[in-house]
Amino acid sequence: MQIHEIPTGTQAMDWQVPKEWRIDEAWIEDPTGRRIVDFAENNLHVVGYSEPVDRKMTLDELQEHLHSLPEQPDAIPYVTSYYKRRWGFCMPHTQRCRLPQGIYRVRIDSELFDGSLTYGECILPGQSKREVLISTYVCHPSMANNELSGPVIATALAEELAGWNQRRYTYRFVWIPETIGSLVYLSRHLEHLREYVVAGYVLTCLGDGRAWSFLRSRQANSLADRAAACVMAAREGEVREYTFLDRGSDERQYCAPGVDLPVASLMRSKYGTYPEYHTSLDNLELVSPESLQQSFEMVRQVIRLIEGNKTWKTNCLGEPQLGRRGLYPTLSAKDSCDGEVRDMMNILAYSDGSADLIDICTMGQIDPDVALAIVSRLADAELLTPLDSPD
Amino acid sequence: MQIHEIPTGTQAMDWQVPKEWRIDEAWIEDPTGRRIVDFAENNLHVVGYSEPVDRKMTLDELQEHLHSLPEQPDAIPYVTSYYKRRWGFCMPHTQRCRLPQGIYRVRIDSELFDGSLTYGECILPGQSKREVLISTYVCHPSMANNELSGPVIATALAEELAGWNQRRYTYRFVWIPETIGSLVYLSRHLEHLREYVVAGYVLTCLGDGRAWSFLRSRQANSLADRAAACVMAAREGEVREYTFLDRGSDERQYCAPGVDLPVASLMRSKYGTYPEYHTSLDNLELVSPESLQQSFEMVRQVIRLIEGNKTWKTNCLGEPQLGRRGLYPTLSAKDSCDGEVRDMMNILAYSDGSADLIDICTMGQIDPDVALAIVSRLADAELLTPLDSPD
Amino acid sequence: MQIHEIPTGTQAMDWQVPKEWRIDEAWIEDPTGRRIVDFAENNLHVVGYSEPVDRKMTLDELQEHLHSLPEQPDAIPYVTSYYKRRWGFCMPHTQRCRLPQGIYRVRIDSELFDGSLTYGECILPGQSKREVLISTYVCHPSMANNELSGPVIATALAEELAGWNQRRYTYRFVWIPETIGSLVYLSRHLEHLREYVVAGYVLTCLGDGRAWSFLRSRQANSLADRAAACVMAAREGEVREYTFLDRGSDERQYCAPGVDLPVASLMRSKYGTYPEYHTSLDNLELVSPESLQQSFEMVRQVIRLIEGNKTWKTNCLGEPQLGRRGLYPTLSAKDSCDGEVRDMMNILAYSDGSADLIDICTMGQIDPDVALAIVSRLADAELLTPLDSPD
Repeated sequence: MQIHEIPTGTQAMDWQVPKEWRIDEAWIEDPTGRRIVDFAENNLHVVGYSEPVDRKMTLDELQEHLHSLPEQPDAIPYVTSYYKRRWGFCMPHTQRCRLPQGIYRVRIDSELFDGSLTYGECILPGQSKREVLISTYVCHPSMANNELSGPVIATALAEELAGWNQRRYTYRFVWIPETIGSLVYLSRHLEHLREYVVAGYVLTCLGDGRAWSFLRSRQANSLADRAAACVMAAREGEVREYTFLDRGSDERQYCAPGVDLPVASLMRSKYGTYPEYHTSLDNLELVSPESLQQSFEMVRQVIRLIEGNKTWKTNCLGEPQLGRRGLYPTLSAKDSCDGEVRDMMNILAYSDGSADLIDICTMGQIDPDVALAIVSRLADAELLTPLDSPD
Repeated sequence: MQIHEIPTGTQAMDWQVPKEWRIDEAWIEDPTGRRIVDFAENNLHVVGYSEPVDRKMTLDELQEHLHSLPEQPDAIPYVTSYYKRRWGFCMPHTQRCRLPQGIYRVRIDSELFDGSLTYGECILPGQSKREVLISTYVCHPSMANNELSGPVIATALAEELAGWNQRRYTYRFVWIPETIGSLVYLSRHLEHLREYVVAGYVLTCLGDGRAWSFLRSRQANSLADRAAACVMAAREGEVREYTFLDRGSDERQYCAPGVDLPVASLMRSKYGTYPEYHTSLDNLELVSPESLQQSFEMVRQVIRLIEGNKTWKTNCLGEPQLGRRGLYPTLSAKDSCDGEVRDMMNILAYSDGSADLIDICTMGQIDPDVALAIVSRLADAELLTPLDSPD
Repeated sequence: MQIHEIPTGTQAMDWQVPKEWRIDEAWIEDPTGRRIVDFAENNLHVVGYSEPVDRKMTLDELQEHLHSLPEQPDAIPYVTSYYKRRWGFCMPHTQRCRLPQGIYRVRIDSELFDGSLTYGECILPGQSKREVLISTYVCHPSMANNELSGPVIATALAEELAGWNQRRYTYRFVWIPETIGSLVYLSRHLEHLREYVVAGYVLTCLGDGRAWSFLRSRQANSLADRAAACVMAAREGEVREYTFLDRGSDERQYCAPGVDLPVASLMRSKYGTYPEYHTSLDNLELVSPESLQQSFEMVRQVIRLIEGNKTWKTNCLGEPQLGRRGLYPTLSAKDSCDGEVRDMMNILAYSDGSADLIDICTMGQIDPDVALAIVSRLADAELLTPLDSPD
């Protein structure tokens, strides 16, 4: 992985890289001098990007700078203020309600200075210059599902793909701060990405086990969308499909008019839909190794399908005689043509050069891994030939 | 408004303007000489276009000329016979059942003579020669919802639009008798209408408050259809959508093969669907000033949307930084991107030059008036530019 | 009807005509020497295509060659083994469970020899060289619904069409063994069929009365599919629509990639979906003369619709004045424009040269026979003219 530093003030499309924020300490002392809120205990206690402050004030004055969630009174909310100068503290609503009148001292020892935006990038070359983009974001402090799970899966996937001795596509991984990170990345690589990216995914919220979710790109039916939908359809458990109208992360930039990359999102419970979202409750109790492992396998299956997806054409007119090739039951009775035999027949029947394997799996409700294995056997038997692809 | 008189016998497509009908008096006297039915009391008592008659007859002979509604025994039905010579009377079914045997005298002092068909026309020029057609019909005597409500709304709309100091489109209003009136109008203006009409509406049944209804043109997805559907989707209350298969008024002529105008219908309860339809119960008790006012506002909103509809294109790659333009909340927390901010983001995200504002409102479930206000702000901020339109 | 004999070993696409099977007798004697299963009683008792055998064996050895249905314990299953040499017997599961231990004698006096595949063909020429293909299969012994009903209806239809003094299309009927028969037929006539067949149907399972079923071709919206769907939609009783994914008969060959004929299937209960399927219970108790008669009429209606289907164009702008042609009620009241008048108006309104009669019937939910009668009246009145068709 290469680390890139982009200086404050660098133009990125309509935006500029903001100043860097450093914070050393931050706390509130109550009228008795007791520290009741301390950044050292939980970094969510301070509104992200808070400017420095060090003064005394009444409770009423302080209230204007406090954030809490009346409907989740035990959670600390996660609040940031990137592009307007302000300061603030976050705390559980129960605690806020019990604050006595009096003079409080607040101190935030922070600095906004000309620094840089940092992102990571890893490129795994394949047989083709055409690329699959994997993007995940690294800017939410202390959030486990949204967002540590995304970088974790992206890293595991990069390790996995680095170990493959053959990759059809080139893989481009980026670990970026949300929004400004993707804008910076696009402003540096737009021409290349527009020419080579055939599919891309934002990986986020992959650690809880409540559901499978995917969000379509603005194009809605790109290779990325079709592969994700196909893999999701074969998943056990609840699958939630979202349109681009429900977007909320870096696909906002990747799919913007004029950028138009085929980037979908792969998730478990989508950001914004689960109660722990953007609070101190999105912690390591919410995510589990099992869910992360399942998510990794789902993403890997999507990649496997993209790698193996081709448009095939049958080599004979009418059905081939599968029986003499050991691919069909030799005894005809009720139900002798179910399951995998049926899947194989459907792959043959629809491989007319107009539908690719993802189309056929979707139409025939075929598990993508089963389909890849079948196609491999049919190609070995010289019953299917792939159409030339532009790789 | 200009009044036009078209002489009896004038050819109009496959039809001819019929003779004009004048009626002075019409009544039935029962065997005791008492007038039991009198045109002077309610003009629905006579079958429209009845030829003159003045004779005595038995009840059995009379019955052949009587019309009533067994299932609505207190209502007088509205019956006409335009193109076949006959005469008849209409009465409540309860009254009809009580008629005693004996000799009745019937008299209809009417005349069918070479006269003219009368219609009104009002044209409000706009910046463009392209037109919006508003058509309503004026031939059903004593009917309040179907049909006085239509001419009332059309008149109010013409007054409203006459008061606008800028109109993008030219507006053409016609007040015509149903069917023969639209055929006459088309036969006189077909080439012009085919060249210039971009959208049109039949206004009818706009006085009751039970529902919102619209009926699509034969094209089904013309500008008229899309604007009506978009406005209806944002309405409170039940919305009923009808296809051209459910047609029944002048859209039959406007949308006929070879005419092919983009004319939809705007209604509350559609003709034929409510119990008072074509009876004496369709009276001033059925319509209310409040419902008429709502209908006026709905139609005006449709016009406003057509006037403001354009295909816009964003001026920057990636999302523009709305925050520094005061268009985005500066504090990021849960739910900070809802409501109008979300609508604005959707308008930007889909303004790629392929979808017009109506498409985007429909896709994103955005209230059209909200969308028009947002577009205005984004255009002021130079974030959106309209594509050239053929106006 | 012409009978064709195709020798064993003839290549048919990827397949070869197999050896012919002749069987003289077949039975099992139990340890006491009693014949417990005898081909002479029911030909389902022997696995189709069984090779000869004549020996004694234990019950355990025999079990390997027995077939029965635990879930339908009184039925004899129908089992065949076309392309692998084996032998076997079929019996009710109740009987199989009661077999005592001991030495059994089994004898199958059969022969697999170089013979021929037999099929029938009947061609009824029409005004056009373009063809409708009717295919049915004749290889399931003793099965009444699947399959004797198919050949019965095909034969009745051929007799019916032979009696018509005018046929727009040429009709090609084939009575073939399933799969290998259609492969043989395609290998002999592929070029001709690809050039001339405009619609085709596999007729099968037409004898029970539980439902109406049709299965779309791989093209899904060919003339054959549209005509079948249109006729089915006007049927009383349950209608089940299947896609090509549910296929299972000769459409597998007719619709294979590169063959691509527009062949759908017409059925009552689809093969594989009813409990008697492929057992001794699919017998003459399952089918009834009434159901066969209804099926014949349904198929004839499909043919009538294909014969009468054209793209029509109205001859006048705006609605024609139907009243003066006696085609419209002269009195206007509530509901005066229902039923057949409404159907006539819809046929006129949608006959703009872009939709054919099947499209209009489907859209307007018009009974196809009613539509054909209406079109005939409108053509007589010179209100409709057919577009040139490529016949």
